[in-house]
Amino acid sequence: MVTYFFFSSPTVSVCVCFSCHRTQMLWPLPQAFTSSTERYPLNPQAFYFGYGRQSAAQQGCSVLDSAFRRYFSLIFPDYTDVGVDALSNLLPVCVLDNLSVSAGQASLKAETVWGALRGLETFSQLVYQNDFGSYFINKTEIEDFPRFQFRGILLDTSRHYLPVQAILKTLDAMAYSKFNVFHWHIVDDPSFPYQSSSFPDLSSKGAFHPMTHIYTQSDVRRVISHARLWGIRVLPEFDSPGHTTSWGKGQPGLLTPCYNGGTPSGTFGPVNPALPSTYQFMARLFKEVSSVFPDSYIHLGGDEVDFSCWKSNPDVRAFMQKMGFGSDFTKLEAFYMENIVNITSALNKTSIVWQDVFDYHERIPKDTVLHIWKGIPAKYQEELSRITKAGMRVLLAAPWYINHISYGQDWRNYYTVQPQNFSGTEEQKKLVIGGEVCMWGEYVDATNLSPRLWPRASAAAERLWSDEKQTSNVDKAFPRLQDFRCKLLRRGIQAEPLYVGHCKHEYQGV
Amino acid sequence: MVTYFFFSSPTVSVCVCFSCHRTQMLWPLPQAFTSSTERYPLNPQAFYFGYGRQSAAQQGCSVLDSAFRRYFSLIFPDYTDVGVDALSNLLPVCVLDNLSVSAGQASLKAETVWGALRGLETFSQLVYQNDFGSYFINKTEIEDFPRFQFRGILLDTSRHYLPVQAILKTLDAMAYSKFNVFHWHIVDDPSFPYQSSSFPDLSSKGAFHPMTHIYTQSDVRRVISHARLWGIRVLPEFDSPGHTTSWGKGQPGLLTPCYNGGTPSGTFGPVNPALPSTYQFMARLFKEVSSVFPDSYIHLGGDEVDFSCWKSNPDVRAFMQKMGFGSDFTKLEAFYMENIVNITSALNKTSIVWQDVFDYHERIPKDTVLHIWKGIPAKYQEELSRITKAGMRVLLAAPWYINHISYGQDWRNYYTVQPQNFSGTEEQKKLVIGGEVCMWGEYVDATNLSPRLWPRASAAAERLWSDEKQTSNVDKAFPRLQDFRCKLLRRGIQAEPLYVGHCKHEYQGV
Repeated sequence: MVTYFFFSSPTVSVCVCFSCHRTQMLWPLPQAFTSSTERYPLNPQAFYFGYGRQSAAQQGCSVLDSAFRRYFSLIFPDYTDVGVDALSNLLPVCVLDNLSVSAGQASLKAETVWGALRGLETFSQLVYQNDFGSYFINKTEIEDFPRFQFRGILLDTSRHYLPVQAILKTLDAMAYSKFNVFHWHIVDDPSFPYQSSSFPDLSSKGAFHPMTHIYTQSDVRRVISHARLWGIRVLPEFDSPGHTTSWGKGQPGLLTPCYNGGTPSGTFGPVNPALPSTYQFMARLFKEVSSVFPDSYIHLGGDEVDFSCWKSNPDVRAFMQKMGFGSDFTKLEAFYMENIVNITSALNKTSIVWQDVFDYHERIPKDTVLHIWKGIPAKYQEELSRITKAGMRVLLAAPWYINHISYGQDWRNYYTVQPQNFSGTEEQKKLVIGGEVCMWGEYVDATNLSPRLWPRASAAAERLWSDEKQTSNVDKAFPRLQDFRCKLLRRGIQAEPLYVGHCKHEYQGV
Repeated sequence: MVTYFFFSSPTVSVCVCFSCHRTQMLWPLPQAFTSSTERYPLNPQAFYFGYGRQSAAQQGCSVLDSAFRRYFSLIFPDYTDVGVDALSNLLPVCVLDNLSVSAGQASLKAETVWGALRGLETFSQLVYQNDFGSYFINKTEIEDFPRFQFRGILLDTSRHYLPVQAILKTLDAMAYSKFNVFHWHIVDDPSFPYQSSSFPDLSSKGAFHPMTHIYTQSDVRRVISHARLWGIRVLPEFDSPGHTTSWGKGQPGLLTPCYNGGTPSGTFGPVNPALPSTYQFMARLFKEVSSVFPDSYIHLGGDEVDFSCWKSNPDVRAFMQKMGFGSDFTKLEAFYMENIVNITSALNKTSIVWQDVFDYHERIPKDTVLHIWKGIPAKYQEELSRITKAGMRVLLAAPWYINHISYGQDWRNYYTVQPQNFSGTEEQKKLVIGGEVCMWGEYVDATNLSPRLWPRASAAAERLWSDEKQTSNVDKAFPRLQDFRCKLLRRGIQAEPLYVGHCKHEYQGV
């Protein structure tokens, strides 16, 4: 996913046609740009996006067609009402390619439509209004590409239910910061809001409410399709064998009955790894999930498995003996995860798992991605070093647990993370495929999600997109992030302030 | 301000007429109540509020007439559309008084209309819906009154501008928690949003923007009138001589020019106490402010005065000599505050000042209230002890600086404050007139105000209203506060969650 302005051999090219400063105010910072004080006025009445003649993508490409409309509204908010519908008549294929900006046209070239989306975002941030409200753009050339391919945000819809609208709004804001993966931690101990077509009881009995606090198949399709139009992948997580309390309500027999002395205590532990029915259930569930979520990756969890319930259960212990695991419950855990990974591999999915799995599972497939969440706040470098040394790809989340709040400008902590600054070879560094901002839901729902995410998550977004050397000074980043936060407000995102001050257009959503 | 259900010799009585459990779910907890499992259905079509025959207040009392409408909508949100306008035909004066709840009527007696408002809030919280949506109320008797007369919230509209709508919404939510004072910290160093009719330059030059980031006289009247209808006083603060940077922009000559060596540095310090023009300006400004804000109290600030600029200025030093202050700048500060207090006293206002003033001003009038903000988090007891020993009334804010956020259930810290647990006589304890939740604005504007305030401020509200012995167990308070938070959501207040879980009606404001 690479975005270029004025670059050769693109396969997608977009012309931004208008009768065509503040490059330093882009967020995240592009890899290379030159800008001039020469500025061109933009006339919204005559402005349109079109496809280049040589472009592989042409009108009818739903991703770009709809992006043109969205970005017109974002660039010219005052013209939103008239703009969107009238615009379809103004979308000719651009007859010229490689025009210079000075000739009243900008061109955007990208290898993929997804890269073109990132370029449109950058373009939209270049446009500004003068004191009289007129729109301008400065002469600019930008070459850009992301530092990491995986730039994710995790939302937790189990500890609190998030209405679909809150998710969609988050996807919008993610695109503004060039995030490209929505990690949907959809179920967990407290509730199971995913309405499964194979196992409807999982949500009818395991959700907070069987009608108002669930995600229907239609809701899920809506989220995926909305995300796709913003160039965002949806990575579903169905975490097991731990974090599954809510699963047990709609699927009797799935969880391990815990024993107190010689009798069942009435409570349940992790998924029961000793029963064949467990794997039959998981195979059917993951078959459905693999089909509903088209992404080639799936997140299988595997974190924080408490062995005490397994240990208490005589049937589990008998299974351990039969399998020759002795009293090493990590072997049982590995056995379970191996089965789950095999199920999803057979469905042509690549697995992402929390780093715990690396510690107990020796035969983990080499294409599995380990998700680093331990070692907060500073020891995650050791984890990165240790796991990449084994040749495994990693995804960094530990320093970006953004649900942890504190007083003051904690975005600085997120900004100064150095994902590749650990002891290891160049080959090891390349195994860091990206990072993820995690918004766990203990204290977060739709009432406070947006102001806690934005613009704090945007600090991590720049770290994941931009060149590290060019963005090493957090004080220099401050005014640019303040400006970006005002842009978020202007776009209706409830982004909280970084410090004392104001935006020209304050949040009006009260 | 005392509210009673079923109590003798009231001067205001309100009948709640319906063809007429969860008392434990009231927030803040009333002083005394008995409830029964006997419940009565409420029919919204036949429900109305009316005045008792003996009531001093009758139809035409704007505070109660409008409260009846508001509380009808709050109690029956499904009927809001039809209820409000149709209601005016359904507001007869209640012909009976002292009816028991079992006869299909509730009565509310209070000494003042303000007490009646608190009782209506309590009544509204008693009504609940069963699983089929029918409304019920249980047989209940309540006697109630506030522990402290002053239960305030400070909003800071200088570090960030808060749109009037955000203030009005905060006033609504304040009434739900029985707060009764809005301390409007309206101006400070960063901006001067108050549009003065006497000195329009103060906001046209000192506000973040002279049109969009100001409070006009009409805005201020709207806030005061909205607050009054909820029984909330508006306490304006015009803090000086420090915290006045923004004042200097529209009032040249007001601030002290700082010197570097023997020449002015171009920067300015606190208000210049050495010039007669300062006091002429202040007299005129406070005359206007005293007339615009009808409350009998006015907050004069007086905190955090930095002496370095005064020390650097030769004219100020000459004034010190002339006045015989030597090199004791606290005498200069006391001189200044004494002048300001005299100005407002002459305007028949009682002063509230930050506690700093106590430390330097020996001749402070005995009716002045000292506002305790130092000694966070635990040493404020010493401050309370020391200042009440001098016979001064105090207002406690130190442990309730709610802008300071941390991860987890920090509401517990606000709940367990004991405002009268300090070393001193009973007479000293009585000098604590109440407390205040302060939401300073460094990191807060309309994007995050509501979820940061609610329900965390409600924890302090119960401490200020309820009996301390009955509310000493924070774990017992937890489910009741969770329930109250869901009520806030139902009323459209963006109140954040206390922990994992859900509300029947989630926040829909996305």
